[in-house]
Amino acid sequence: MSRLLRPSTTIARCMRSMWAPSGVEPVGPCVSTEIPGPVSKRLRAEMDPIHQTTSVKFFVDYERSFGNYLVDADGNTFLDVFMQISSLIFGYNHPDLIKVLSDPRFISAAVSRPALGSFPRNDFAPTISRALSAIAPKGCPLVQTMLCGTSANENAIKTAFIWYQTQKRGGPPSAEDLVSCMKQEPPGTPNICVISFDGAFHGRSLAALSMTHSKPVHKVDIPAFHWPVASFPRYKYPLEKNVQYNGEQDNDCLAKVEELIERQKKAKCEVAALIVEPIQSEGGDHHGSPAFFQGLRDITKKHGIVFIVDEVQTGGGGTGSFWAHESWNLSSPPDIVCFSKKLMIGGYFYAEHLRVKEPYRIYNTWMGEPTKLILLEKAVEVIKRDNLLEQVRKVGKGLQSGLRQIESANNSKMRNVRGLGSYCAFDLCDTATRDKFLDTAVSNGLHIGGCGDTAVRFRPALIFTENHLEIALDIISKSMKRL
Amino acid sequence: MSRLLRPSTTIARCMRSMWAPSGVEPVGPCVSTEIPGPVSKRLRAEMDPIHQTTSVKFFVDYERSFGNYLVDADGNTFLDVFMQISSLIFGYNHPDLIKVLSDPRFISAAVSRPALGSFPRNDFAPTISRALSAIAPKGCPLVQTMLCGTSANENAIKTAFIWYQTQKRGGPPSAEDLVSCMKQEPPGTPNICVISFDGAFHGRSLAALSMTHSKPVHKVDIPAFHWPVASFPRYKYPLEKNVQYNGEQDNDCLAKVEELIERQKKAKCEVAALIVEPIQSEGGDHHGSPAFFQGLRDITKKHGIVFIVDEVQTGGGGTGSFWAHESWNLSSPPDIVCFSKKLMIGGYFYAEHLRVKEPYRIYNTWMGEPTKLILLEKAVEVIKRDNLLEQVRKVGKGLQSGLRQIESANNSKMRNVRGLGSYCAFDLCDTATRDKFLDTAVSNGLHIGGCGDTAVRFRPALIFTENHLEIALDIISKSMKRL
Repeated sequence: MSRLLRPSTTIARCMRSMWAPSGVEPVGPCVSTEIPGPVSKRLRAEMDPIHQTTSVKFFVDYERSFGNYLVDADGNTFLDVFMQISSLIFGYNHPDLIKVLSDPRFISAAVSRPALGSFPRNDFAPTISRALSAIAPKGCPLVQTMLCGTSANENAIKTAFIWYQTQKRGGPPSAEDLVSCMKQEPPGTPNICVISFDGAFHGRSLAALSMTHSKPVHKVDIPAFHWPVASFPRYKYPLEKNVQYNGEQDNDCLAKVEELIERQKKAKCEVAALIVEPIQSEGGDHHGSPAFFQGLRDITKKHGIVFIVDEVQTGGGGTGSFWAHESWNLSSPPDIVCFSKKLMIGGYFYAEHLRVKEPYRIYNTWMGEPTKLILLEKAVEVIKRDNLLEQVRKVGKGLQSGLRQIESANNSKMRNVRGLGSYCAFDLCDTATRDKFLDTAVSNGLHIGGCGDTAVRFRPALIFTENHLEIALDIISKSMKRL
Repeated sequence: MSRLLRPSTTIARCMRSMWAPSGVEPVGPCVSTEIPGPVSKRLRAEMDPIHQTTSVKFFVDYERSFGNYLVDADGNTFLDVFMQISSLIFGYNHPDLIKVLSDPRFISAAVSRPALGSFPRNDFAPTISRALSAIAPKGCPLVQTMLCGTSANENAIKTAFIWYQTQKRGGPPSAEDLVSCMKQEPPGTPNICVISFDGAFHGRSLAALSMTHSKPVHKVDIPAFHWPVASFPRYKYPLEKNVQYNGEQDNDCLAKVEELIERQKKAKCEVAALIVEPIQSEGGDHHGSPAFFQGLRDITKKHGIVFIVDEVQTGGGGTGSFWAHESWNLSSPPDIVCFSKKLMIGGYFYAEHLRVKEPYRIYNTWMGEPTKLILLEKAVEVIKRDNLLEQVRKVGKGLQSGLRQIESANNSKMRNVRGLGSYCAFDLCDTATRDKFLDTAVSNGLHIGGCGDTAVRFRPALIFTENHLEIALDIISKSMKRL
C-alpha cells in the first residue's frame, strides 16, 4: 500500500529522515507539509463514505515508522512521545518483536484463534507464566486475560461483585438468586455499586462510562448506573512548597470516600468495590500521593470493599516500574490490578481470595488473544535484557528537570510540571493555549498528547533515551516561545 | 512447546491421524484417552495457580490441528464442528491465511499497533473496503470496527442512544446536557432503554448482560440496567406441520413488543433500540421466522426505534450467506448489524442516518485490530474464490436431512431438527441426556457444542464438506444408540 501512497512533492525535503534504512532511527524529525498533509486529507476523503473520520488526526505509514519516530502518510517524520495513546511499549517495528512473528506458536495462534476459556493452547500456562506472572504485582498471583482495558475493568468489577455477594451469603448463589437474576430482580440481581472518582477514565462501555468522569463528550446521551463519585486530590506544584495544602486535599478526599460508603449503606446500595487510577490520565494527568492511596487501601480494607487499581495506562514500565502503585509502598497490596495498552492485551491480576469458584461466571469466547501474549513474553524478556526500566527512571528525571527549566522561562503560561518515570505532564494557562501548543509542537516535529482541559502529557515508549529527550525539550522550548 | 508435551503412550494408536503431514487433513478422528486426557489434566494443574481453569474442557495442540480436525494435547484427533465457539471461519492453520502473516502490512500492524480512531494506517480505507464493505449488508454502508462481539453490541447501542437523543432534541447536545451528564442526571444522562428478548445472548459486559437472558450463571450477582424483555418465539417442529401454532407464536411475541414500547413510554423510559439475534444461539438455537423479523422491522420503524440485528454468531457465512438476515427478505434493511467471531474482529455495519457527527463520541484507544482485518480481507477473497457459501448451503441441506433421518430412528429422545445453512441444531429429551450425548460424541471423535438446556448445535467452519458430514452423522447416529 505504501508504494501507492508514496508522496511525491515532499520526498526530497525529507530524504534525510524518511529513507532511513530499516533498523536505524532517523537523526531527527522532519516536517514538510501542514498537518494533516495533502495525502492524509485525500485518505480521509476516501475513508469517510465507509467509516467515520471525525477524530482522525492524520494517516500513518506504519511500515516506514521506526523506533521513536513515526512517519505519516505525507512522509513527515515526528519524534513520537505519545505512542498511540500510550499503547506502544517499544515504539515502531522493534526487531525483537518482528522476529516473534515467525515463531510457529505465533503462526498457529494468529490463524487458529482459540476460545481460551474452554480450549486453551497447550503452551498457555508457560506463556502466561513468562509474559504475565513474571511481572505480577505483589499480592496478586492470579491473572485473567481479556482483550482491552475496558473489558479488563468490566470483568474486574464483575469479579468484585461476585466476591462481595458470595461473602454476604456465605456461599454460592441460592436457588432464589438464580431465579430472580433472570428477572433482573434482587436478590439475584443485587443493588450494589462501585465508587469511582471525579476526573477518572475507566473506558467507554456503559458500565465503564458510569465510572468515567473526565469529559462530557464521553458520557452525554448514554444511560448510566447511578453509582457514587468521590473526589480525587488536585495538588499545587511544586509539591515540596505546598505540603500542607496538598495534605488537606488528601484528607478531604478520603473523608468524602468514607462519607459515600456510609451514605450508600443507608440508601441500600452498598459499595462492593472502589476503582482508581494511579495517574488520572485522560482526565488531565492528575497524580495522587502515596498517603492518599494508602488511605484508600485502609478505608477499603476496613469496610470489606474490593480495592481495584486501574493501571491500564500506567502499567508496563513507563512510570519506571512495571506498576505505578509500587511507588506507593502500600501496607497491603491492591485486590485487583487492571492492565492493557503497553501490555498489548487487556486483563487483570487479582488476589487469591477473589478466585471465582464456579465455571463460566468470568468467561467469554476469546478471553484474550494468544498472539499478543506471545509478543508480550518477548517484550518482558527485552525489558530485562536491556535494563529498560532503569533507563525510564533516568530519562524521566532528566525530563522533569528539563521541563522545570522551560517552566521557569515561561512561568506566565506553563505550570505544574509533574511526573512519574517518563510519564510527565505540565499545564498551560488555558485550553486554547494548550491546543495551540500541541499544533505548534507537531509542526515542529514533536508528536505529543493533550489531556484534560489544559494538560500536555508525555507517554513515550520504553526505548526513549536522553538523545530523544534533548530533541523533545528543544522543540517544547521553541514551541513555547511561539505561543 | 508441543515437543515438550508430546504424549508418549497414545502416539502409536493415533499415528494415522495425528501425524498427518502439514496441509493434509487426517482421514478421520481418533481418540485414545479419556477426555480430558492425562496431558490435559496435568496442564490444568499447572495452570490453576496462575489462571482460572474451571471452564477448561481440554488443552489443544494448535500447531498440529488442521482443517476440520482439532488435535488435543494428548494427541486425540477430533472432527470439529464447534470451531472455538463458532469463531473459526476456515478451521485450523489454513494455508491461505498463513501466507498473509509474511505480508509487510501484517508485520507492521502486528508489532506497531495503531490507535485507529486518530492515527489510522494509510491502507485502512482500502483494507476496510476489501474486508468489510465487500460484504456489507444491504442498507448499511458504514462500518465501525471494534475488538469483539460485546464491544460491537455496546457501541451499537451507544450509536442508537446518540441518534435517538439527537433526533429528540433536533441537534447536538445542549450546554445543559453537557453539564448534567457529568452528574449522571437528565437530560444529559437520559432515562432510555433497549428492548431485548428472553433467551437472548448479547455479551457479558454489564450493559450487554442487561440484554442477555439465556442462563442464570451469566447474570447472577451482577447489577443490571432494568430494561424491558420481550418474548422470542418458541416453535414446534417440523415447521410445515405446525404452521398455525408457530404463526400464533409470532403474533403473540410481536404484540408483546408493542405493549412494552407503550409501557416504557408511560414509565418515562422510552425505547431507543431493539436488539435481536437471527438465531438465539447460546440460548438454545431458537430460530425466528421471516414473518416475525419483518414484524419487528415494521414495529421499530413505526415507533422510530433503532433496529439492531446481532449477527455476532450468525455472520460470516455459516448460515449459507454472509448475513443470516438476508434470508428474511425484509421490506427495509436493519439499521445496525453487529458482527464478530468468524469475522475475526468485532464491529457493526450501520445506516447513513445513524452517522455520529461529533468526534470522540464513538471512540477508544484501539478501535479494532488491523492484523485481523488484513486476515479477513484474505478470507473474503478465499470464500469467493472457493465458492464456500454455495458449499455451506449444499452441505447444510445434507446435514438437516441426515439429522432428520437420525431423529426418525430415535424419536423418543431426539427432536426439533432445525437449521439455516450448516448452523443446524436438535434437542434431546432433557439436560442429562444432552450432556451424556456430548460426552459420548467427543469420545467417539466428534467435537460438537451444546446450548440452552437441551440443544446440540453445529457450528462448523466454511470448509466443512460432504465427506466430513458423513463422518459426523455416523458418530451422531452411533452416539444416540448409546444413550
